[in-house]
Amino acid sequence: MHRSKVKVATDVLDANATIARTNRADFDRAGVRVVNLMSAPGAGKTALLERVLIDGMGGVRVGILEGDVQGSLDADRLSALHVPVTQLNTDPGFGGECHLDANMVRSAMSELALDEIDLLVIENVGNLVCPAEFRVGEDARAMISSVTEGEDKPLKYPLMFRACELVVVNKIDLLPHLDFSLERFLENLDRVNPGVEHMLVSARTGEGVHAFAGWLMAVAHRGTRGEATRV
Amino acid sequence: MHRSKVKVATDVLDANATIARTNRADFDRAGVRVVNLMSAPGAGKTALLERVLIDGMGGVRVGILEGDVQGSLDADRLSALHVPVTQLNTDPGFGGECHLDANMVRSAMSELALDEIDLLVIENVGNLVCPAEFRVGEDARAMISSVTEGEDKPLKYPLMFRACELVVVNKIDLLPHLDFSLERFLENLDRVNPGVEHMLVSARTGEGVHAFAGWLMAVAHRGTRGEATRV
Repeated sequence: MHRSKVKVATDVLDANATIARTNRADFDRAGVRVVNLMSAPGAGKTALLERVLIDGMGGVRVGILEGDVQGSLDADRLSALHVPVTQLNTDPGFGGECHLDANMVRSAMSELALDEIDLLVIENVGNLVCPAEFRVGEDARAMISSVTEGEDKPLKYPLMFRACELVVVNKIDLLPHLDFSLERFLENLDRVNPGVEHMLVSARTGEGVHAFAGWLMAVAHRGTRGEATRV
Repeated sequence: MHRSKVKVATDVLDANATIARTNRADFDRAGVRVVNLMSAPGAGKTALLERVLIDGMGGVRVGILEGDVQGSLDADRLSALHVPVTQLNTDPGFGGECHLDANMVRSAMSELALDEIDLLVIENVGNLVCPAEFRVGEDARAMISSVTEGEDKPLKYPLMFRACELVVVNKIDLLPHLDFSLERFLENLDRVNPGVEHMLVSARTGEGVHAFAGWLMAVAHRGTRGEATRV
């Protein structure tokens, strides 16, 4: 009788966690580190990855798994930079799923050319809610928050800002044209995820992008066992 | 045996449609028209409503139902303008639901003071995927796309751009500072929803906001029977 009180949602997340661990084991065996990159739509995930790949990743071989409801616009942009890109569309779900889950990533596993890369960046579907709820087998999670979205976003989407070990603040080239207080944004961020690492960048001008590239390279060089930051 | 092929997702949407019709009947009885307002996080839904309410709605009495994962930041902002605002939080769902559905709106029905308003604006959770899948009993759906999100959004989130009868293009004051082609955005919009009404606004400067107010007033004055645009 106790079982009848367990919510379906919990079961969904349990099943997801099981598959995420399997994905993680496969990535580990291949020696590939994985970053789950999340943001609202239009925050600049693809633009930032483009800039990082153009500037170079110090010999780290990068692959991309591109999550979208439909189409392959971002995958096409990134393929032009001569990195292996796999497109994963979520529209077989009803109307399109708003996030990637571990099983979707699993279904793409055989396409990922893991023996040719050191680091897989999974560009999640643009959404500040559900992607934070589903681990996919990643080593690290980063999210991008653009200054055009407003100072209040950490307070409105706390799970997303808490789920990450890095918050990239993008579009800082627009700060002079916005009513946006960076100080207040960082205060709000500190309220929901005290001490979380953050960096200020502009994918458009390139400012600060080297710091994000450095963070990605550091993840790529993490070992596969015993790190406190890995779950 | 045929029934076993029906997906759970379909059942979810069927149940939602049933409750949405019940909501709609209640709104109709009260003589209240309802707009479901959707966008990505930070596109400016609340800022646009603030500006519309400050500028005035020609005697139309407006109420707001404010959908958020957590907190009441937007509801507090709008309450300051002396309109009835009801907060509806989705975080009882696992990690927070990423959209409003008909049953959530139904649960707030008794709080809405329908006898004091002519138009209810439902500010949905910021998300370009799932809100488009769930009708809540509205008369009309509008979405806001800010120019900082990029030209490609209609192609990447086609259901959202198709589900609306109005697309409000916000933050046009930032156009001089962006690599954004309005022409290309409108071409992309036309590809997924040919002929859909759109308007260019800046909630920050007030430019074009009168047109959005006019559209809201027109919805408020729609009759309750026989309109082709009502579902």
